[in-house]
Amino acid sequence: MTRPRCADVGRVDRHFEGRLSPTDEHAMREHLPGVATRGYDADPAVRARARERQLADEICDSAEAAVSGVDLVVLCVPVGAMEEAARAIASSLKPGAVVSDVGSSKLGVGQALAAALPGQPIIPAHPVAGTEHSGPDAGFASLFHHRWCIVTPPQGADAAKVRALVEFWEALGARVDTMDAEHHDLVLAVTSHIPHLIAYTIVGTASDLEDVTRGEVMKYSAGGFRDFTRIAASDPTMWRDVFLNNRDAVLEMLDRFLTDFAMLREAIRASDGDTLFDLFSKTREIRRGIIELGQDDARPDFGRKHNGDG
Amino acid sequence: MTRPRCADVGRVDRHFEGRLSPTDEHAMREHLPGVATRGYDADPAVRARARERQLADEICDSAEAAVSGVDLVVLCVPVGAMEEAARAIASSLKPGAVVSDVGSSKLGVGQALAAALPGQPIIPAHPVAGTEHSGPDAGFASLFHHRWCIVTPPQGADAAKVRALVEFWEALGARVDTMDAEHHDLVLAVTSHIPHLIAYTIVGTASDLEDVTRGEVMKYSAGGFRDFTRIAASDPTMWRDVFLNNRDAVLEMLDRFLTDFAMLREAIRASDGDTLFDLFSKTREIRRGIIELGQDDARPDFGRKHNGDG
Repeated sequence: MTRPRCADVGRVDRHFEGRLSPTDEHAMREHLPGVATRGYDADPAVRARARERQLADEICDSAEAAVSGVDLVVLCVPVGAMEEAARAIASSLKPGAVVSDVGSSKLGVGQALAAALPGQPIIPAHPVAGTEHSGPDAGFASLFHHRWCIVTPPQGADAAKVRALVEFWEALGARVDTMDAEHHDLVLAVTSHIPHLIAYTIVGTASDLEDVTRGEVMKYSAGGFRDFTRIAASDPTMWRDVFLNNRDAVLEMLDRFLTDFAMLREAIRASDGDTLFDLFSKTREIRRGIIELGQDDARPDFGRKHNGDG
Repeated sequence: MTRPRCADVGRVDRHFEGRLSPTDEHAMREHLPGVATRGYDADPAVRARARERQLADEICDSAEAAVSGVDLVVLCVPVGAMEEAARAIASSLKPGAVVSDVGSSKLGVGQALAAALPGQPIIPAHPVAGTEHSGPDAGFASLFHHRWCIVTPPQGADAAKVRALVEFWEALGARVDTMDAEHHDLVLAVTSHIPHLIAYTIVGTASDLEDVTRGEVMKYSAGGFRDFTRIAASDPTMWRDVFLNNRDAVLEMLDRFLTDFAMLREAIRASDGDTLFDLFSKTREIRRGIIELGQDDARPDFGRKHNGDG
């Protein structure tokens, strides 16, 4: 029996940071020792570092070589670059090889991959995991443990191939849900895209004030602001593409947030303490649920260390 | 020479959680062994727990007893309860005893304390530290290490007494800045109050959707949302009072945030990737500065542990 083979294609263009590429591969090497893995990144420096860290059995010098003969290809580029990445490998794919991805929006990605790879089985996926860091040193083997991976098979997808992709993610330590791409995009607009947009905005607002200096913003950030700066330090290309690709769901959720925010603003303006107290009392429950589901660290302050402490 | 004496008065009413009271005292016992400390909380259960944890040399059964004869009183109640707390101790204070506090807004608190305690030296302060937890078990001795405490002496304050309060906070491990109360309230609106308001709002919005379930919000929160749930789990009374007391500065900063947010919304609507990319590129710098200043954990993901990991 031949070892199944898997390729992970990051960064088809050196403008892209290929955030998840080495991450995936690091987890793959650890959890799927029986699977032969290949990786590719458009940046030679990233390929060199990936070889040093042994992120895959083989780091290839072209996307075509990386995908040739493999059973599963996982595209790990910003969602706006998926179509280009798919076109680059189209003529090298084995018939029947599954093409998947790790992008943060799914409807547009599925359409882009289907357009670029007619006749190839396309099964998009999104592991809801990661940190604010990118690049070949950002990965660690437990990144997907206890995190959810959402698989969005298109209508008529081959059930056996979907099952194989689900098992791939489960082998990396993830839990897997399956849903349609539209619903994925709405859910992630709430749990990921709007939070990033808010964080980018408030960090930008705070950077540009005239009456409060940047130094003051940084010094007194432990009052809450610093919590927003982590996700606002995420890769700009990746996030630009998410908002362009998931525009409709983002705008829909954004308007609901703004409606609620306007209500709170009015409560403050009118000194309506009861409205404030009622909202502030009900939001604890969601955090409790998140901790019970194993999706966050239960220790105070996310378990942060104080600078200088042991 | 007599030992200087210090009292920390929490919770004058059992509706208040007195978040900072035991915290302060825990740090005080550790860092100021030569200072005699007394504490009081309106809730007998909190007093009992404070005695068990030995949060002060003496836990008194009345606010009057706690402050009698002391050199420094630190009021640790929600900012809306400061005046009531001050009135409760007015007749028991030693002439010349400094009355301070740890509230998150300073202009209103200074006015409330001055109104309740005519003739008494009032020097408000705000240690920018804390976690999402409250109560007698939330404190730890290093809470103020490397954090800033802002002291806002009123015009004409006795320089020697201000210096003594600064040294008190420095002894607890904090760094101290002095500024006027108006400026404090504007700075903290940005670095603390607006972040809390945003977090409470988005967690509230996400809890009440019809097309995305609470279960989905919690399961996929690792995409960014969970970062907001920590501060949205903070004490509701404390935060209601902050918004009512610092209304003008909060509304001013809130409108700047909303202006920037509307600009980003329009960029998404118009598929203007360049505007998004430019903002997303500049926000990393602030995080870098915060980490360099020792105000956040440099490890990815705030140093969170994955549930189930070692």
